[in-house]
Amino acid sequence: MTRIGIFGGGQLAQMLTQAAIGLGLETVIFERTPDSPAGRLTQREIVGAWEDPALAAQFAAQCDLITLENEFVDAGMLAALEAQGKIVAPTAAAVGLVQDKLVQKQRLAAAGLAVAPFQAVATPDDVVQAACAFGWPVLLKARRNGYDGYGNATLHSAADVPAAWERLSRGGGLLMVEAFVPFERELAVMIVRSRAGAAARYPVVETVQEQHICRIVRAPARIGPAQAAAASDLAAAAVAAVDGTGIFGVELFALADGRVLVNELAPRPHNSGHYTIEGCVTSQFENHLRAVLGWPLGQTDLRTPAAVMVNILGRRNGPAPADALQAALAVPGAHIHLYGKREVRIGRKMGHVTALGATLAEAEAVALRAAELVDL
Amino acid sequence: MTRIGIFGGGQLAQMLTQAAIGLGLETVIFERTPDSPAGRLTQREIVGAWEDPALAAQFAAQCDLITLENEFVDAGMLAALEAQGKIVAPTAAAVGLVQDKLVQKQRLAAAGLAVAPFQAVATPDDVVQAACAFGWPVLLKARRNGYDGYGNATLHSAADVPAAWERLSRGGGLLMVEAFVPFERELAVMIVRSRAGAAARYPVVETVQEQHICRIVRAPARIGPAQAAAASDLAAAAVAAVDGTGIFGVELFALADGRVLVNELAPRPHNSGHYTIEGCVTSQFENHLRAVLGWPLGQTDLRTPAAVMVNILGRRNGPAPADALQAALAVPGAHIHLYGKREVRIGRKMGHVTALGATLAEAEAVALRAAELVDL
Repeated sequence: MTRIGIFGGGQLAQMLTQAAIGLGLETVIFERTPDSPAGRLTQREIVGAWEDPALAAQFAAQCDLITLENEFVDAGMLAALEAQGKIVAPTAAAVGLVQDKLVQKQRLAAAGLAVAPFQAVATPDDVVQAACAFGWPVLLKARRNGYDGYGNATLHSAADVPAAWERLSRGGGLLMVEAFVPFERELAVMIVRSRAGAAARYPVVETVQEQHICRIVRAPARIGPAQAAAASDLAAAAVAAVDGTGIFGVELFALADGRVLVNELAPRPHNSGHYTIEGCVTSQFENHLRAVLGWPLGQTDLRTPAAVMVNILGRRNGPAPADALQAALAVPGAHIHLYGKREVRIGRKMGHVTALGATLAEAEAVALRAAELVDL
Repeated sequence: MTRIGIFGGGQLAQMLTQAAIGLGLETVIFERTPDSPAGRLTQREIVGAWEDPALAAQFAAQCDLITLENEFVDAGMLAALEAQGKIVAPTAAAVGLVQDKLVQKQRLAAAGLAVAPFQAVATPDDVVQAACAFGWPVLLKARRNGYDGYGNATLHSAADVPAAWERLSRGGGLLMVEAFVPFERELAVMIVRSRAGAAARYPVVETVQEQHICRIVRAPARIGPAQAAAASDLAAAAVAAVDGTGIFGVELFALADGRVLVNELAPRPHNSGHYTIEGCVTSQFENHLRAVLGWPLGQTDLRTPAAVMVNILGRRNGPAPADALQAALAVPGAHIHLYGKREVRIGRKMGHVTALGATLAEAEAVALRAAELVDL
């Protein structure tokens, strides 16, 4: 059986493992802590720092192919694995182009793709100067390791700069600044590109963020066909611009005048693609595995006119109760996924609910009701 | 996290584990050999004989609830676990009523349910005498431990009795004889009954056996509404007659005159219910877990007008190749499940394919084509 090594053992690795089982694949999980959601699902669990060369060698020795569930893996380490003859997908080069948000934006801009104005900043003064050019507000971002709003700050005036600079540059990371885009909607598209050359696109979806965390995903997005085509083309071009292999999540901004901008790429399964498990013929997780193995891609069509995913976010701090799902399971048509995290934290992604329907409104009502009833 | 112990580590335990993950449950696998399809998916794998009291105690100590993937677990051992305060589902009593086919038939007949004429036999002469009453052909069956035709023989005359008797009674097991039913179709129904009292029925499906092994399952069965209602009612009554908890597979015979007989019960997920993974709102595996936990049951409706499952049966003997799926994955709409068995054997169940469609013919063509292309 082919063994797929995954950097990371969280929910994305867990759902990749679920998809791997049916394809006759084994997974090897490399995570900093034991008993992770995916580590628990294999007897091949490597626990420790990815930067530990002995552990990395032990991990690589067990894998036929290596992939990842987040982009915080050092691209240099991936390149070293490639140099040893390991297949790494996405490639070290693609991860290197994506994991630094400044480098990513430069690459997208160089490919002629529409992005918001952006600039590297070395001092707080640089931020103020950029804002003079872009206009306030601006977004200050850590170039690496940001997720779910950690690593971002929206600045409305020069007075906001010092505290945000202090918070985001703690630890010595470099920063960048971007113009704030007055978007009408946030969109996302999952793009899958096979090592064998084939590519496929999932539908354009609409994402709703609350406090920088994805809360709701609506498939398909409520936009016109021209804007949907533009978003789909832009997403595909963005992943091609970094020569991505495997599944990529592309976040975009839809403007009221019909234009679409690329916001960010993720070189991995993405929260905005969880709806594909029940909503599409082939899930993002299965298609990622097909793609990295160079196997034929599966169909990406929606199975029903509408699918809505709602994240289950922690509402307290403490251990997760064993019967958290009971009430929610009574909601007809709600497909509930827990991630097996033993500790609840306020705002932590504990799971998600997907509902299918004839309309978005119908599906969203079911998914929201079930998510609300989960006791976490 | 609640820990579900499963007697057995084969494909049914594997698919139960896949369903358990999303419900936030952990599994503990107790299988005779290491590296089983389900044992590989947990770090809580107990390897050895179920009859070993020390291992059984070690298994039970790790589980909050115990279930099984086959009915060959000794009911007395299950009763001992219950006496220690463990929740066992299905109960020891239900397994005891089902695992001996003679006892099962007696129970069904006592409940007034339609079954073929049957009789215990102690000698080859008893078989011939029963056949005089029933008419040839008759079925000679091992009362315990039979599956996929192992443990059954169809006898056309007294001349067939000695060899079949010798083969089936090897090892000292008791036998029974049944009248052969000139059925028009074989049907099956999955019934789920919760520890909390709720019950639900899946659609009536049609099964096609080749050499006593299930080859194709068509959902729904091509029968009239009256016969479908009779089959569904009979299946539900049969599971109620043994007071089953969890999911049960009920095999039935449909006669040309419209009558339906119960053939056999399985106190567990069943091959004839694999189509429910993609075909129904809630899979048989998820509903089994909901039922044994006393959680609300999920909807059992078909998601599309038709679903067809085709088993992937080994066509040679030897190690399974890593890329067996490549060609089959190119068939649009085929949902392929491999069981992760490292060795192929002729006729061995290696996986299955499900296809959904507007008609049975359309779905069956897709599933058959994909199954044919799997290189196992």
